[in-house]
Amino acid sequence: MTKNKEKEAIFKEISPSEFFYRNRELAGFTNPVRALYSAVRELVENSLDACELAGILPDIYLKIGLLDGYKDKPDPRPYLLKIVDNGPGIDPKFVPNSFGKIFYGSKYLLKQSRGMFGMGGKMAILYGQITTNRPVKVYTSTDGKIAYNYQIMIDIKENKPVILEKSTSDAQGKRGTSVELCLEGDYQRAYPKIKEYLTQTSLVSPYANIFFVDAEDRVTVYERSTNLMPKSPTETKPHPYGVDFETLRRLVKESSQENLMNFLSKNFHRVGSRIAKKFLEKYNFDPKRDPKKLSDEEILGLSKALHSYGEFLQPDASCLSPLGEEILKAGIQRNLNPEFLAIAIREPSAYLGFPFVVEVALAYGGEKIPKGISLYRFANKIPLLYDESSDVSWKVIKELDLSRYNVRPDMALAFIVHICSIKVPYKTLGKEFIADIPEIEREIRNGIRDVLRKLNQYLSRKRFMEKTKRKANIYAKYLPLIAKFSTELAQKKKLPRYKKLIGWRVDGDNEGKN
Amino acid sequence: MTKNKEKEAIFKEISPSEFFYRNRELAGFTNPVRALYSAVRELVENSLDACELAGILPDIYLKIGLLDGYKDKPDPRPYLLKIVDNGPGIDPKFVPNSFGKIFYGSKYLLKQSRGMFGMGGKMAILYGQITTNRPVKVYTSTDGKIAYNYQIMIDIKENKPVILEKSTSDAQGKRGTSVELCLEGDYQRAYPKIKEYLTQTSLVSPYANIFFVDAEDRVTVYERSTNLMPKSPTETKPHPYGVDFETLRRLVKESSQENLMNFLSKNFHRVGSRIAKKFLEKYNFDPKRDPKKLSDEEILGLSKALHSYGEFLQPDASCLSPLGEEILKAGIQRNLNPEFLAIAIREPSAYLGFPFVVEVALAYGGEKIPKGISLYRFANKIPLLYDESSDVSWKVIKELDLSRYNVRPDMALAFIVHICSIKVPYKTLGKEFIADIPEIEREIRNGIRDVLRKLNQYLSRKRFMEKTKRKANIYAKYLPLIAKFSTELAQKKKLPRYKKLIGWRVDGDNEGKN
Repeated sequence: MTKNKEKEAIFKEISPSEFFYRNRELAGFTNPVRALYSAVRELVENSLDACELAGILPDIYLKIGLLDGYKDKPDPRPYLLKIVDNGPGIDPKFVPNSFGKIFYGSKYLLKQSRGMFGMGGKMAILYGQITTNRPVKVYTSTDGKIAYNYQIMIDIKENKPVILEKSTSDAQGKRGTSVELCLEGDYQRAYPKIKEYLTQTSLVSPYANIFFVDAEDRVTVYERSTNLMPKSPTETKPHPYGVDFETLRRLVKESSQENLMNFLSKNFHRVGSRIAKKFLEKYNFDPKRDPKKLSDEEILGLSKALHSYGEFLQPDASCLSPLGEEILKAGIQRNLNPEFLAIAIREPSAYLGFPFVVEVALAYGGEKIPKGISLYRFANKIPLLYDESSDVSWKVIKELDLSRYNVRPDMALAFIVHICSIKVPYKTLGKEFIADIPEIEREIRNGIRDVLRKLNQYLSRKRFMEKTKRKANIYAKYLPLIAKFSTELAQKKKLPRYKKLIGWRVDGDNEGKN
Repeated sequence: MTKNKEKEAIFKEISPSEFFYRNRELAGFTNPVRALYSAVRELVENSLDACELAGILPDIYLKIGLLDGYKDKPDPRPYLLKIVDNGPGIDPKFVPNSFGKIFYGSKYLLKQSRGMFGMGGKMAILYGQITTNRPVKVYTSTDGKIAYNYQIMIDIKENKPVILEKSTSDAQGKRGTSVELCLEGDYQRAYPKIKEYLTQTSLVSPYANIFFVDAEDRVTVYERSTNLMPKSPTETKPHPYGVDFETLRRLVKESSQENLMNFLSKNFHRVGSRIAKKFLEKYNFDPKRDPKKLSDEEILGLSKALHSYGEFLQPDASCLSPLGEEILKAGIQRNLNPEFLAIAIREPSAYLGFPFVVEVALAYGGEKIPKGISLYRFANKIPLLYDESSDVSWKVIKELDLSRYNVRPDMALAFIVHICSIKVPYKTLGKEFIADIPEIEREIRNGIRDVLRKLNQYLSRKRFMEKTKRKANIYAKYLPLIAKFSTELAQKKKLPRYKKLIGWRVDGDNEGKN
């Protein structure tokens, strides 16, 4: 058969920037509406992460502005996006790569953070660059004395930063980072989602001040309603249940321990020397064996054994940064001001060796919650606004029989579900929804049942109180008459002390005194 | 403030392989069930793509086998996955990178193919490697004379192939490629999805033979039911509506044309010199200007102008490879064997400069379609089995008032929606569902309405026929009697020719002869 040159496959290599430039919808940059929304959220999340990691109460300033010369043009048009935070600042030596190189960043650790893929901020910069050809401007100071100013573009073909300008200035006592970029957006249509995003962010981060100046120069302030902050997340070691061959081989290669027992107890989460010894004995590994001398086959065997051994302690969640009851309450009460609020903080659990905590709240009644069922979904303190129908929480709620909890369709109910983990199993780079991992689903279901039971108790008590009150009203109407008639009938003058019977205060009134 | 060393952000760079190794759920490798399913589909799709590109009727052999020593162990356990095709083979110089380097491949062109991200096959190899530590074995021959044999692993940290073995052998006249890998899977739970995937693949690729040998050594053959093949897709140039600043700047840099008019008419889809001239005049660009001398600002202006100019011709779809009515019919009739089948091939359309074609079919009744509404979704001839509820087609169907088309809930209806494009707007790397791009939604809606109207006509005709038949039955019963009585009443002997009235054949029978 003769080869047809035209139809031969053409092979080439592309850079990570190039890949995500071509497939930007994978990261939530689908169109000018989503792009503006995604850019805002990625920048806000990076700022909040930076502040919280350093234990600083966040002050975030966000501005969306129109560029000169575009005021009378229709959307989509270029917008200026600026975010300023009071975080710890960024060491200047990391600035160029962390703004101009995909797959470079501070999120590639076993640690809880809003950012997960280290990609969103760079996607915003990349999108801005291809739609407006302007560099990102970064201003950062780690000490409040010297500020470093950069103007950076991304060389997409090579996946590397191009520094257009670099200078220093007096930071005038202000620590933190400011990022400014231009991108084409459809503000009119993105605005409602952006507002909703900020409102929900303020619900789970009530310890942050967020100042938002929109494109019409209106200022919205989401004011801090508590000074309590969740403790900072910390990095953790891999848990034996989540370790695959590749990870284990790397740990072996890099290990400085001379024997397997020390190797296991130094490198793994929740493995002490006692458990390590028991484990190694069970699977016939010599505790004195030099890990560096293990063959690939033996490493594979060891990783299988680590998965099979049922007696490791579950990952502990002390590395995580859940909100806790107080903070959740502060956020929900300010934003939703419900008649009744129930919170269930689930015990830490784990999937594939990754610890996670599920926090569930149920807000009922009041004037801010719409009738029917609302669901607010959060993961590592990020609101998830898109693709609700694919999310595990929605699945759980749909499967419940709410009438068992005396919930009627016309009630106003808001569920708040927050999952935090060192690894949230998002199904998309755009962090829209969470895969249905059985362990997570179970915790969400138990949390939701828990708050529903509490609501049921409240509703029963409320019904009982109303019934009692209705009864009391009837008594209140007839008892004085009955008392009067009885007194007259008995030819007495003093009324009996009947008010006590219907729960009226009897101190100081003139009951039984006429 | 003193810096807390522990809490400082730690920056690092990771390779593309490392990124997808850590976030493999993004590409559909969530767990041993999904991983086995995804590996099968990615390998099948690569083989079908290769055959079709070369215009070869595909013969695909797929085997899932248990490894020795694991027969009595429970799932998840290691499986052997082998696929053999009769495609054009792969030039050996491309083999190591195309199996061992992420972001290297043959899918990075403006051309329709099942593969989109050039990632799936490598993810299967990577997943196999980290769960079983075995290399992928590739055997390929482009000429049927020499076969090249490789054993390759991926250096995940460096994102590069490691060649463990390389040899040649006599291809014995067989052209094509064979890929063999081991991976841990949960076969028991993945099996139904794999079968469903192959069945649906055979529905849209009825011109392929697929032999499937499962882990219990049962053979399922999806036999070719037509020799018609869709024409091969071809590469196309970018359309001016889809060109952003970055693309334009690259084209300018690489251009060999000396003036803007030639630059535009040589590099863009549907732009000839006449349109180029008109366009350049409208936006005050000098047609004789050297494109290489354009400043970045001018390039940006040019890209905006290209977007704004409303008079470019829409992308044409001749580069696409839709199925067409014949092939679709062959697939649906073999697989679903419906009572009634309507097909609507929509006119080519475009979004963001990418041409696409939507093909819709509606199969009704028969014994194979379950009651209620089923939806079979396909994109570039791939069945999409997961996350149906998030998909644009499902959204369209849910929004329709089916009762307007006389569809009752107990009817058996199967919608088949196929979209083909040089770029399918998937929302996930796992290619589970399609974003709701307005242009695509519109075409799907129109296609579905079209086939529903045809169904409605069919149902009306069927009802009319049934009514007529019922009537005819009544006539058939009474008319002979009436005729007889009337004849007797009129004292005649010869019956009137009444059979014609109820549509009976009158040739050769004895009507009117007694």
